[in-house]
Amino acid sequence: MNTGELTDLGQQLRVDSVRAAAAAGSGHPTSSMSAADLMAVLLAHHLRYDFDRPAHPGNDGFVLSKGHASPLLYSAYKAAGAIDDEELLTFRKLGSRLEGHPTPQRLPWVETATGSLGQGLPVGVGIALAGKRLDRTGYRTWVLCGDSELAEGSVWEAAEHAGYEHLDNLTVIVDVNRLGQRGPTRHGHDLDAYARRFQAFDWHTIEVDGHDVDAVDRAYGEAASTKGQPTAILARTLKGKGVEGVQDREGLHGKPLPEAEEAITELGGPRDIRVQVQEPPAARMLHSVHTGNFELPKWDKGKEVATRNAFGEALAALGSGRGDIVALDGEVGDSTRAEFFAKEHPDRYFECYIAEQQLVASAVGLASRGWVPYAATFAAFLTRAYDFIRMASVSGSGINLVGSHAGVAIGQDGPSQMGLEDLAMMRAVHGSTVLYPCDANQTARLVGAMAGLEGVRYLRTSRGESPVIYAPEEEFPVGGSKVLRSSGEDRLTLVAAGVTVHEALAAAEALEQEGIAVRVIDLYSVKPVDRATLRRAAEETGCLVTVEDHHPEGGIGDAVLDAFTDGRPVPRLVRLGVRSMPGSASPEEQLRASGIDAESIAAAGRLLVEEAVVR
Amino acid sequence: MNTGELTDLGQQLRVDSVRAAAAAGSGHPTSSMSAADLMAVLLAHHLRYDFDRPAHPGNDGFVLSKGHASPLLYSAYKAAGAIDDEELLTFRKLGSRLEGHPTPQRLPWVETATGSLGQGLPVGVGIALAGKRLDRTGYRTWVLCGDSELAEGSVWEAAEHAGYEHLDNLTVIVDVNRLGQRGPTRHGHDLDAYARRFQAFDWHTIEVDGHDVDAVDRAYGEAASTKGQPTAILARTLKGKGVEGVQDREGLHGKPLPEAEEAITELGGPRDIRVQVQEPPAARMLHSVHTGNFELPKWDKGKEVATRNAFGEALAALGSGRGDIVALDGEVGDSTRAEFFAKEHPDRYFECYIAEQQLVASAVGLASRGWVPYAATFAAFLTRAYDFIRMASVSGSGINLVGSHAGVAIGQDGPSQMGLEDLAMMRAVHGSTVLYPCDANQTARLVGAMAGLEGVRYLRTSRGESPVIYAPEEEFPVGGSKVLRSSGEDRLTLVAAGVTVHEALAAAEALEQEGIAVRVIDLYSVKPVDRATLRRAAEETGCLVTVEDHHPEGGIGDAVLDAFTDGRPVPRLVRLGVRSMPGSASPEEQLRASGIDAESIAAAGRLLVEEAVVR
Repeated sequence: MNTGELTDLGQQLRVDSVRAAAAAGSGHPTSSMSAADLMAVLLAHHLRYDFDRPAHPGNDGFVLSKGHASPLLYSAYKAAGAIDDEELLTFRKLGSRLEGHPTPQRLPWVETATGSLGQGLPVGVGIALAGKRLDRTGYRTWVLCGDSELAEGSVWEAAEHAGYEHLDNLTVIVDVNRLGQRGPTRHGHDLDAYARRFQAFDWHTIEVDGHDVDAVDRAYGEAASTKGQPTAILARTLKGKGVEGVQDREGLHGKPLPEAEEAITELGGPRDIRVQVQEPPAARMLHSVHTGNFELPKWDKGKEVATRNAFGEALAALGSGRGDIVALDGEVGDSTRAEFFAKEHPDRYFECYIAEQQLVASAVGLASRGWVPYAATFAAFLTRAYDFIRMASVSGSGINLVGSHAGVAIGQDGPSQMGLEDLAMMRAVHGSTVLYPCDANQTARLVGAMAGLEGVRYLRTSRGESPVIYAPEEEFPVGGSKVLRSSGEDRLTLVAAGVTVHEALAAAEALEQEGIAVRVIDLYSVKPVDRATLRRAAEETGCLVTVEDHHPEGGIGDAVLDAFTDGRPVPRLVRLGVRSMPGSASPEEQLRASGIDAESIAAAGRLLVEEAVVR
Repeated sequence: MNTGELTDLGQQLRVDSVRAAAAAGSGHPTSSMSAADLMAVLLAHHLRYDFDRPAHPGNDGFVLSKGHASPLLYSAYKAAGAIDDEELLTFRKLGSRLEGHPTPQRLPWVETATGSLGQGLPVGVGIALAGKRLDRTGYRTWVLCGDSELAEGSVWEAAEHAGYEHLDNLTVIVDVNRLGQRGPTRHGHDLDAYARRFQAFDWHTIEVDGHDVDAVDRAYGEAASTKGQPTAILARTLKGKGVEGVQDREGLHGKPLPEAEEAITELGGPRDIRVQVQEPPAARMLHSVHTGNFELPKWDKGKEVATRNAFGEALAALGSGRGDIVALDGEVGDSTRAEFFAKEHPDRYFECYIAEQQLVASAVGLASRGWVPYAATFAAFLTRAYDFIRMASVSGSGINLVGSHAGVAIGQDGPSQMGLEDLAMMRAVHGSTVLYPCDANQTARLVGAMAGLEGVRYLRTSRGESPVIYAPEEEFPVGGSKVLRSSGEDRLTLVAAGVTVHEALAAAEALEQEGIAVRVIDLYSVKPVDRATLRRAAEETGCLVTVEDHHPEGGIGDAVLDAFTDGRPVPRLVRLGVRSMPGSASPEEQLRASGIDAESIAAAGRLLVEEAVVR
């Protein structure tokens, strides 16, 4: 396209953005209008994408980090022929694929859900990593950011990562329109301020007038041909560009244009320019090629093994069998044992350093390209990435997260290092799976099973060693549980997972000596939870004690109660968990101080059974 | 002190760090040894701190961001006379104040709990903001960081904030010892790489040999006298400095020295140097001065008011009455209505732009200086700061967090903007309070009550308008609830909060028409929860339906069940919540699609009552 045609296309994207927001009665047309020329040039001249084959391994990646500018994205889809005008006008309506913020769950061309600012570049880094280190089909990754979101540290965490990894297949286009939601940004139109920051993180930078289509065209060309560095294009734009009454004005964020018809006229009226988007080069999926036989590691019963070790060994084995498995570390691979994978598969191992947001974002980016990522850090530090995990769920992203050093059982390091909120956090994520093994063989099986699940999968591992209690051939279906002890005379059920399984077994032994027969359930699948087994235990034993190395809210106790919320009567139940703020102490002292050791469990169980008798 | 004395003090700090870790059998002596000279010079020549009066308003702030180097901190306390040698050797033992990572809950001289890397500078920025904009007693804030943690985006989020705010009372000292936990850092000893980054964010930088005490002394002096900019001191150091066998070697992170006795000898043996730390200048607490009468806003029953508006108005009123109230915004103050406070109290309003980690960290820093912060953003975006909220709880920090735009009721914007995990996340925080008002008068009362609570307080507000159902004089104790309807014939209790209260009332009305008498409980205090009222309702009505605009895990349903986990029989219960991933739709359509509107509630209640009869 020549200058005039590109300019016309930009105007069409503006008109369609205004029309879509007007039809919806809400949305962000002014934020779309500032970036319209940037999008027009990208679509017409630089993006290589087959809209009929969104899974094409050669397709460029495009992430609209400023997800509120969705009208612009959908207008571009229309210009590319991916959707028609009728669908465009369903924007933000019930059942429409065109949501307020784009999600891949509904639209196949969206790489990742956006709308929480500062996430587009981190996920783009993940896509670019896939492209550079794994796929090698030559695709580029383009991220369109707003300027306001550069206040998010996650952007600079990503910038650091991209610069260090020399991701020259990555371009971020910053739509510097100077206005945030409630007023001016920190740096207004000072493009140099942003350029200095990107340069410091070893990026190539280009400053450009974002409404000069030829200059933008040249900038994209320069970005694509820059070697050894990612490129940041800082584009000076005007919010609401093209409509005098709204252009560069405050107080018009996130609202349809006040006079939509007049605005459309001022923008030259509707057009019907169709863009022939460049085809991607022929390419094949690398990661589906290599899938061989493999065997998960096995341990003999009675051996003392930390579940984090079993995770590391199992993941390494899984990686030998499946070429699509990748692992990511937050600079604690020696602790999480992710390093076991690194030693065997260094080409598929991603060191993210101490940067948990980038850790999860990289996993999301890799997953969007068909890879099956396992990202591991301390359970406690996954809280750093909760917004990214939440958005991964909105994306429907298939990622495996592994949190080690869970609970007070880690011992001396103290509460900052203890995952005590992770089960609550992960259970609340829509569509998530939450697994918490208690022995090595179980861990290995669950690591294998995770790979085949949908959505966000979480595995919680422990620091200390624990005895292997299951035979290597035992199976552990997700959504199941294991009844470790039971008899016809059980008057109490102990429900535990992870480290507390071993404490519960010891407690059951002690109670048995006193004449109280006790059932013990290993609830390794915290979500989904094995309702049938829990209900049977409630009916048959009448009393339940749940015990978890986690704060009492949102964890195993709540998961167990979930089995009794369909209107049936609920059993007598007591929940044991970490109710005070721990300090430093040995693992054994910690369990005792928190009242989740064998003795405390036995005491609680004894009391509950006695009370049930009295009543 | 002269050069030799400072050097000797550094060696003493090393020796004591080695001794403490050896006595504990765990800990991070090598990470302490790299920073020992940096700490010695700070303690002896620059820090102004009265250890007998940790609340002295003129005390400098000191944050050990690399919290694992706690042996160094405790060794410094000993050198300053704050603790004795006997206590030093209780390090990491059960009941000791000297935890693996320092916390203000146990030690009065610790400003904020650390141990989750990348949080010290953000909190330091909050302290420096307090110093520069509010306290004005001339104190400085010193943050000692590791180099590994500069990979965290939160550090650059803080750097951006500090540079923009010209925090020349803030100095970050980076202990560039080149080694992380599992190996070398990204930039090794390349001090320029770090300096470039800080400079890009408008910081003054100084590069120095971190073991040259005179150079370090000059650097601190230069930092203290630099005007208009914060200063970053990049100090080249060696991990394990001073002991040949461990110095600058990999694989020795987080372990006691292998040959502690020999190491102590090599370091010149134990010393007993006592440092006379400079007294802070005389100063008075500004924020306790001004407390006047004020009246919370009131609304007439039946009026339609959004609870977010009530929050904004109430906070502005509270700010008029109490001079210690401050407010913080994440660039959405026009949405959360925090801007109402800004208009009346601009001097106590902190714009954090789109940077939720810094938003919470600033609140923690301000709270550490005695201010009472209210930090507001969308409920969904508080997930971005979960690790900071978790650590605030470890600190015992008294902060108020306000999450607006909760749940599917926001309507068209879609799931990225909907807080659907916030209740779970906040309930799981130890010692937290979780409040969720349904009308304007209730909101105002709760905003007022929050100020006087301990720990992390969370208020969830709604975007849309809802009718005022309470009289202005009604009281809402934290831990209470309101029975909005009840009779002697109730066969069902509906438990709701926030937007679902109004739906539950409509459902109860409909069921009443059918001859089913229904109790309705407004559970505005989600944590602590009103166990007595819930138990009475269970006993008297037999059936409970909980209904929440939140995912089913960890929210109101789980909070209600918490009343029945002391071994008593639990009622028949059904939980209604958001069980699918929402898209865009109107607020009414959203409630219906999620099955939490009046009609769905009535249907669930009807079914439960009928089943109870059949059984």
